[in-house]
Amino acid sequence: MLSQSQVNKLKSILGDKDVITSKIGMYAYGYDGTMLEGAHVAVVFPESTQEVVEVVNFCREQGIALVPRGAGTNVSGGTLPSEGSIVINFARMNKVLEIDLENYVAIVEPGVVNWDIQEILAKYGYYYPPDPASWKASTIGGNLGESSGGPKCFKYGVTRDFIYGLEVVLPNGKVIWVGGRDFSSEPMYDLTRIIVGSEGTLGFITKAALRIQPVPQAKRTMLGIFNTPEDCSQAVADIVAAGIIPTTLEMMDNLIINTTEDYAHAGNPRDAGALIIIEVDGYAADLDAQVETIRKVCEKDNAKEFRIAKSAAEVDQIWLARRVAFGSVARVKPNYGINDITVPRSEFPKAIAGIEKVKKDFGATIGIVAHAGDGNLHPLILYDQRNKEEVDLLHKAEMVLCELALSLGGTVSGEHGIGILKKALMPKEFGEQTLNVFKKIKRAFDPQNKFNPGKIIDL
Amino acid sequence: MLSQSQVNKLKSILGDKDVITSKIGMYAYGYDGTMLEGAHVAVVFPESTQEVVEVVNFCREQGIALVPRGAGTNVSGGTLPSEGSIVINFARMNKVLEIDLENYVAIVEPGVVNWDIQEILAKYGYYYPPDPASWKASTIGGNLGESSGGPKCFKYGVTRDFIYGLEVVLPNGKVIWVGGRDFSSEPMYDLTRIIVGSEGTLGFITKAALRIQPVPQAKRTMLGIFNTPEDCSQAVADIVAAGIIPTTLEMMDNLIINTTEDYAHAGNPRDAGALIIIEVDGYAADLDAQVETIRKVCEKDNAKEFRIAKSAAEVDQIWLARRVAFGSVARVKPNYGINDITVPRSEFPKAIAGIEKVKKDFGATIGIVAHAGDGNLHPLILYDQRNKEEVDLLHKAEMVLCELALSLGGTVSGEHGIGILKKALMPKEFGEQTLNVFKKIKRAFDPQNKFNPGKIIDL
Repeated sequence: MLSQSQVNKLKSILGDKDVITSKIGMYAYGYDGTMLEGAHVAVVFPESTQEVVEVVNFCREQGIALVPRGAGTNVSGGTLPSEGSIVINFARMNKVLEIDLENYVAIVEPGVVNWDIQEILAKYGYYYPPDPASWKASTIGGNLGESSGGPKCFKYGVTRDFIYGLEVVLPNGKVIWVGGRDFSSEPMYDLTRIIVGSEGTLGFITKAALRIQPVPQAKRTMLGIFNTPEDCSQAVADIVAAGIIPTTLEMMDNLIINTTEDYAHAGNPRDAGALIIIEVDGYAADLDAQVETIRKVCEKDNAKEFRIAKSAAEVDQIWLARRVAFGSVARVKPNYGINDITVPRSEFPKAIAGIEKVKKDFGATIGIVAHAGDGNLHPLILYDQRNKEEVDLLHKAEMVLCELALSLGGTVSGEHGIGILKKALMPKEFGEQTLNVFKKIKRAFDPQNKFNPGKIIDL
Repeated sequence: MLSQSQVNKLKSILGDKDVITSKIGMYAYGYDGTMLEGAHVAVVFPESTQEVVEVVNFCREQGIALVPRGAGTNVSGGTLPSEGSIVINFARMNKVLEIDLENYVAIVEPGVVNWDIQEILAKYGYYYPPDPASWKASTIGGNLGESSGGPKCFKYGVTRDFIYGLEVVLPNGKVIWVGGRDFSSEPMYDLTRIIVGSEGTLGFITKAALRIQPVPQAKRTMLGIFNTPEDCSQAVADIVAAGIIPTTLEMMDNLIINTTEDYAHAGNPRDAGALIIIEVDGYAADLDAQVETIRKVCEKDNAKEFRIAKSAAEVDQIWLARRVAFGSVARVKPNYGINDITVPRSEFPKAIAGIEKVKKDFGATIGIVAHAGDGNLHPLILYDQRNKEEVDLLHKAEMVLCELALSLGGTVSGEHGIGILKKALMPKEFGEQTLNVFKKIKRAFDPQNKFNPGKIIDL
């Protein structure tokens, strides 16, 4: 607990209303997408870089850890408040500072919600490609911390690929700008990309220069429905082998098809083994040929159905199942563990087969949603948190899935970060020597280990 | 000078022929694209990662600095051997280890020449986008060290954007793999991109996983010729504003047009103020519309001529002047200082105007070649190295151009690295606090400062 003088000092920096220390007031900021609970002693809401600096300096002097937070949607425990920490919530630093279409850049504060900047950009015919499923709630700051991906990442890349530069408050209280303002070819060590994805362990981002793009002239949305996941994953491989790079290759399996039918009546056949939503974008003139190639590939790979959306309503209909996928599984079990393994695209069919094996071996209920083009799979392990046996089974199955990904040359975390949940797997994924380099980098930035301590890596 | 026992030890690691200590034998490895001369005591040619490790361990024990080298084409002194150092030349580590079309990856050793991997990939209909002007000579290892760009970078990005992962020998002799093998969404701190562009100061790259792509279905090459550089740079801005992202927007000014005419009779009008080579690529069906838009923009911006290549021979004809540009200036003066400033695209016309002012203020002879889409300019300051007055003028003009770039929100080095030539400008470009972070990173990797010491940054 903070002393009264500590609370007073924070209030003198931030104003009374921007410091919460009551248990009930702090409660909502102690959780994220995991089911764990934090043990923080205050929540503060800076409204400017200067206030962030003052909070950082105060906490450094007092030896208090700081845990940065956006909308708290992350699912690996990266924003879970550590014991005795202060949560620094960037929600009120949510200004769009500049939109510069000529240089393809938008400069925003970290509290801006991804969806909000997309809506603003859309008015000008522009967009910011990274589009995590959480984009209606998650903030740019959170996206930066996790280097979030999303359905469009196969063609366009993840958050790390769309940042020109950042304003960062370092653990020593200094404010630096890393990278460029509107070009990414800055010389020297690439600090921008080491900060992006670091989950607030190296510095706090107070401004970001996002690389934006004109909205592609045209887009086509297709749906391929298959009898088996094997046929479906073969189609994914064959589409890419045909030289086509779709914007989106979103796959879901029979379980998810059924839960989404129960929940939203998306109109997909309940007996299908798997489906893929395929989108291509670009100039209007070239899309017909791509659609035709994709159609032929799906037919060759035994698609039982292939639909091409003819209207905006039909596009929405195709996306409906995917949009409600995560929520829909609540009809089967109250909780789900969201896994985030990624494998080389060529190993995707083996990953699918491996998940099927886990289902059988553990008698686990698993539904698969996947960004198939990237080899990024989200097997949702369904369970009931009140049932200890199911919780144990979840943890065991999780671990087997992670081992599966590593054995196929993949990673245990494609886009959801490491936080605390995946930390124990890092020695296995990276090896001791690489881990040592990570530790050296953490110490170089944060020698006192007070910026989001215990996340990603233990010193 | 090395002792006989030191030489013997190196020979026992590498074999007799892979260790050079004679003055005449070392001579060729003491220069790079700058006109400076190194002061090394040996040149070694490892043929495997294991040999690199042994050399690194031996040099660490002996307190000898190591300077990594590829083809030595770099122009900022990054490969210039420091006093008493051993040059570690990766030329014989030039194997293409794997080409995996399914996962869009090629795994190569650092000594592979950029052009050679392009030729191999072309057989499969694939390519590796980063294409520095030096690509027929420069190695992938050198490209990685500098994070090289090239004409295609406007659309596709620089070397840093096309690397999945790297095998790296650290100063402590440990070998680590950073990043993925065939996906770039690795979690944790992004070591891959901090190594790329670090000019061998953090670790030596012994393998690289390059992101390759299918060759675009079609390409169109255009030439716009303008009366003034102002009109030309306006056209660049207007093409991008029209929502088109060309592969290439290469500009050259009147002086370069004339030297290339003298040298190669490229067929461009000698009275033109500037020209741009424009290429678009993608699916065949959509290119006509883009060409038409570009033609209209150039007309609107007072192009005196606009050509569209109708055959491979006409494409070559359009590129001829650009290809010989750097060499052609030798007809005016024996030496040139190659500048590498980059400014936000919107400031490009101001940069052109600023260079014109430098010409007048200093009476300097400057020819401009530019990757205009990126705002990356190469003003070539022509001089005679035997004339002290001209050398002084070169250095002064260089400095004014760098100040110009910084004043426009740009960088002093877009794609040619820092090496030793740009090091003194880093405090001005980055500020003291950011420089401190760079130093901490260098120390974290290389506490004894023996990997390419004195380059990029002073400790």
